[in-house]
Amino acid sequence: MRILSGIQPSGRLHLGNYLGMMQPAIQLQDEGEAYYFIADYHSLTTTTDPEALRSYSKDLALDFLACGLDPGKAVFFRQSDVPEVTELAWMLSCVTPMGLLERCHSFKDKTSRGIAASHGLFAYPVLMAADILIYDSDLVPVGQDQKQHLEVTRDIAQKFNDRYGDGLLKLPTPRIRSETAAVPGLDGQKMSKSYGNTIDLFEPEKALRKKIMRIVTDSTPVEAPKDPDGSYIVQLYQLFATAEETAALKDQFRAGGRGYGDFKQILFEKIRDHFAGIRESRLELENQPWKAEEVLHHGAHKARSVARMTMERIRAAVGF
Amino acid sequence: MRILSGIQPSGRLHLGNYLGMMQPAIQLQDEGEAYYFIADYHSLTTTTDPEALRSYSKDLALDFLACGLDPGKAVFFRQSDVPEVTELAWMLSCVTPMGLLERCHSFKDKTSRGIAASHGLFAYPVLMAADILIYDSDLVPVGQDQKQHLEVTRDIAQKFNDRYGDGLLKLPTPRIRSETAAVPGLDGQKMSKSYGNTIDLFEPEKALRKKIMRIVTDSTPVEAPKDPDGSYIVQLYQLFATAEETAALKDQFRAGGRGYGDFKQILFEKIRDHFAGIRESRLELENQPWKAEEVLHHGAHKARSVARMTMERIRAAVGF
Repeated sequence: MRILSGIQPSGRLHLGNYLGMMQPAIQLQDEGEAYYFIADYHSLTTTTDPEALRSYSKDLALDFLACGLDPGKAVFFRQSDVPEVTELAWMLSCVTPMGLLERCHSFKDKTSRGIAASHGLFAYPVLMAADILIYDSDLVPVGQDQKQHLEVTRDIAQKFNDRYGDGLLKLPTPRIRSETAAVPGLDGQKMSKSYGNTIDLFEPEKALRKKIMRIVTDSTPVEAPKDPDGSYIVQLYQLFATAEETAALKDQFRAGGRGYGDFKQILFEKIRDHFAGIRESRLELENQPWKAEEVLHHGAHKARSVARMTMERIRAAVGF
Repeated sequence: MRILSGIQPSGRLHLGNYLGMMQPAIQLQDEGEAYYFIADYHSLTTTTDPEALRSYSKDLALDFLACGLDPGKAVFFRQSDVPEVTELAWMLSCVTPMGLLERCHSFKDKTSRGIAASHGLFAYPVLMAADILIYDSDLVPVGQDQKQHLEVTRDIAQKFNDRYGDGLLKLPTPRIRSETAAVPGLDGQKMSKSYGNTIDLFEPEKALRKKIMRIVTDSTPVEAPKDPDGSYIVQLYQLFATAEETAALKDQFRAGGRGYGDFKQILFEKIRDHFAGIRESRLELENQPWKAEEVLHHGAHKARSVARMTMERIRAAVGF
């Protein structure tokens, strides 16, 4: 089973990205042949500064490897190292009705948030379809917001097969990531860069502690019992703790006699310890930049050879 | 000076194509470094049958070479042999406002003529811009109907340079082909496949004669003087004859005593003789298919090395 996932490099990652996307992706590498790519072609729709794009891409590679992506199991590469995908996108465009793209929510959503209404942004779902189809992907884990794009991919693949021959492109199966692990930000809203409420993945220790101390709480006095269920501290804690540890913390909330500052300290230590090893790996990788480059280089080689085989088949099918 | 022109393979060529586009292109090969390509990526927007596309492409290559395209002067290649152009198209898409494409007439014109409203058809001007810009083209000869696309190309190049750096892409100069040499079809309307009034370029002699005998005339009797100025016979004749020959034919019209059948015979012989050498070359090329393949192969090699240099520069500029 081939699993495909693309991640846009768009700046420093936060705990929401880590828990919502990286951790599940890394766990999936044991379930099949994972193809994970840094979606830098897609980034051109939003990141217009070349220096920023370069550093975002580099950081994303280091982050992923530090967090446990295993290049022995997963094929990890930059999208732009396989330009064949843009050729397939053109071919798919020619079987894609305009109406299919016009019905996509994400274009309207993004432009309403101030992103320029470029043709690239509009054509995004076609390139995404090419990303998926060029690797004969079986499974594509996506968030709820990408569900429609997966349906578009299947539609396009079906139209292509209808025109040029059954089975030329493999229809992928989506796996919608459960959104149960909603990660609250410092203010309790969903953690998101646009709300300015994030905890970054590799926050230096001091800054991490300072941020956690800013988590919004109510004004229950130190001695009084506290309600653990509405607390963002507990919500964050349980994402890193065992069930037993979480139960123990909740008991301390209810018992009273300790202030929120103490609980924030406990949360801080938990997060700090969770990332201790990851932080160390990240530092090592940073100091040996050729290591990540080598991984991406090998990944590109492997991915490109698969893409080239697909394109040989597809080019013949359309009449080249 | 680099001259760029792309021709869509879309079936047998007729005299209108020959006089309006091929002859001027072939003459231009003496004015600069001509890059001419068979636009097979573009054909996917209209030709959905792979076998048809393959044979159209092959025929177009043979036609062009037979008509005098000189591979010693011009670089002649298949668009799809330089897939880099689709990569540039994606990058250009990301600086192309949707409004720019929405204002293009050709999409509406084509869909109103029954061509499927695919995303490829809509995105056509972006791929055309990439075709032009990837070769640093100076001059692009186009018909009146393509004038707007050239303006779009210049707009896109300017936007790209504004974002990523002055001079990265060279703004091409259009040369609008004069439409004075309007070629009438058998019924006097503009010669066009959609009117079913064409004379094909390599019509067998018998069929050619039969078609010319079908040219619409009035019913002036044989003995009576005839008006040469409204006659489609004269209009076609003058496109292949010298001024003296045309004047002589007009005199015969005015003198009376000869019927339209005679004049059609004269026209038939003129066209037959004009294409005698071309027809022979075409036959030779058909019998040695490797010759055209070799030309296209060399052309692709040359074109691709230019395209690759451009893409190296462009990829670095956007942040890869």
